[in-house]
Amino acid sequence: MTAAQQPPDLADIEQAAKRISEYVHRTPVLTSRRLDELSAAQLFFKCENLQKVGAFKARGASNAVLSLSATEAASGVATHSSGNHGAALAMAAQRRGIPAHIVMPSNAPAVKKAAVASYGAVIVEVEPTLAAREGTLAELLKETGAHLVHPYNDARVISGQGTTALELLEQVANLDVVVVPVGGGGLLAGVATAVKCLDPGIEVVAVEPAGADDAFRSFGLGELVPQTRPNTIADGLLTSLGELNFAIIQQRVDTILTVPDEQIVQAMRLQWTRMKTLVEPSGAVSFAGVLEHPERFRNRRVGIVVSGGNLDLDALPW
Amino acid sequence: MTAAQQPPDLADIEQAAKRISEYVHRTPVLTSRRLDELSAAQLFFKCENLQKVGAFKARGASNAVLSLSATEAASGVATHSSGNHGAALAMAAQRRGIPAHIVMPSNAPAVKKAAVASYGAVIVEVEPTLAAREGTLAELLKETGAHLVHPYNDARVISGQGTTALELLEQVANLDVVVVPVGGGGLLAGVATAVKCLDPGIEVVAVEPAGADDAFRSFGLGELVPQTRPNTIADGLLTSLGELNFAIIQQRVDTILTVPDEQIVQAMRLQWTRMKTLVEPSGAVSFAGVLEHPERFRNRRVGIVVSGGNLDLDALPW
Repeated sequence: MTAAQQPPDLADIEQAAKRISEYVHRTPVLTSRRLDELSAAQLFFKCENLQKVGAFKARGASNAVLSLSATEAASGVATHSSGNHGAALAMAAQRRGIPAHIVMPSNAPAVKKAAVASYGAVIVEVEPTLAAREGTLAELLKETGAHLVHPYNDARVISGQGTTALELLEQVANLDVVVVPVGGGGLLAGVATAVKCLDPGIEVVAVEPAGADDAFRSFGLGELVPQTRPNTIADGLLTSLGELNFAIIQQRVDTILTVPDEQIVQAMRLQWTRMKTLVEPSGAVSFAGVLEHPERFRNRRVGIVVSGGNLDLDALPW
Repeated sequence: MTAAQQPPDLADIEQAAKRISEYVHRTPVLTSRRLDELSAAQLFFKCENLQKVGAFKARGASNAVLSLSATEAASGVATHSSGNHGAALAMAAQRRGIPAHIVMPSNAPAVKKAAVASYGAVIVEVEPTLAAREGTLAELLKETGAHLVHPYNDARVISGQGTTALELLEQVANLDVVVVPVGGGGLLAGVATAVKCLDPGIEVVAVEPAGADDAFRSFGLGELVPQTRPNTIADGLLTSLGELNFAIIQQRVDTILTVPDEQIVQAMRLQWTRMKTLVEPSGAVSFAGVLEHPERFRNRRVGIVVSGGNLDLDALPW
């Protein structure tokens, strides 16, 4: 399921921004004096939890769907996903008026299945193993001729996610550092590319849950180490880094920090109570990095990418 | 505790907007395709839950504090409040560098007391009766010479709250109707004044919990009926309408609708899950009005004022 592709450049991301502008929200940047005081820094929260489908994934999926020629698009798109990428791809396909096939594990939360179904996608349920997911998807691609859109290891998806940073840098001047959560690395690779092309003086810091720290370890070792048995509340960041993503991250990212789950829950609750926005655990990882490593951010202007806000209101971690 | 004052006009509200611009956020307007589909209308949510101190109250309190001369301000400000107005007044006083005295009932939630204290205000705790609150406040005003800022029955406060609508009408063109929750009537009076002065063709609809419907009854009878024994989850809307507020509402508001608590909880949960923003029960009353009375809003462009987002995360109504 890898895609041998070239890393995108700034022009790709700028094109993506034009392409998807009708499909996604230009999300607001929120600030909070209280959180500034708490961290002794100036924080600018780029709220992708307020994005369509509740996560930045709407950007990459929309760019991929809109990059297809009419002929390619006619057979539809497909992916396997237990989470936000499936809903995002379904949304973008519905907007373009083409079919979407989403392979989902049978244990995916009902609320996630409902979200995908509500965008008119065909859901194919499989056993919750990677082998079952990939095997079923491969068959489905052969049968339907649908076009595969990988959730992160795809240059079109990376370009789409990078538009988050284009907006952030337009919305806030003179940032010193941009902080981004990392799972598969689509968001991080896209944001790092946009930021470093626009202003190489801005630091790009990735944050990863300590219980799923393959990006941290891969970055340190200089070689891709897969994630085995992740254990973290940040359920959107369990996956291993993609190959294309890793290549970009090695080139563009300044450092990767890790955070314990307790700090993720603390960050999440502070964002709920102080900024009044719903942030899912994975979305709170970037702010958790600022809370966990305050010395790195003190007195600086910090852009914080809040990646998503989808979670089960009946199972909150407090 | 009444204030014999003149109803503000558009110029007062425009002055307030200039005066408070450094003290408050220009809050975003959020949209949701899914909520549009659900209501068969185009909804524009003016998110005062993302305002400083988590509620529109920051606007009115800031305008009142900044309207004081240096001499008046020197002795500080005072009010009695169990909720957001106390925190808002404390915040504005701290910003101006003057004392704030907040009389609070002893049964006020710890989180509300903590919010007021965090802005450096002096808290005076009293028995939770209106007599004790008003009596203690009267003594305190005499002793300290502090300036009273009533939470809603005050033209400066009304002008401040009205700035919400100035922004909304700048942010969204061609609205057909603006929907506002009503408790004491400060927000409603301010918004109605701004809307009707800027464009008399825009309908102004107030929404009130069925369990605290004194504004609904007063509006129908044409005379002020106090609220006795309110019973609703919308704890910010328990109070009776102010006199000044009622006079303005009679002149400027087109209609008042009521909603049952079940619809308020439903609206709140939809805003949490679909828009990813924390809305308190009182803040969800305006959207609840749209859900409860869909025929009034179908196919129209509807501005919905979301008044606040302060609530106890450990006591959610589901």
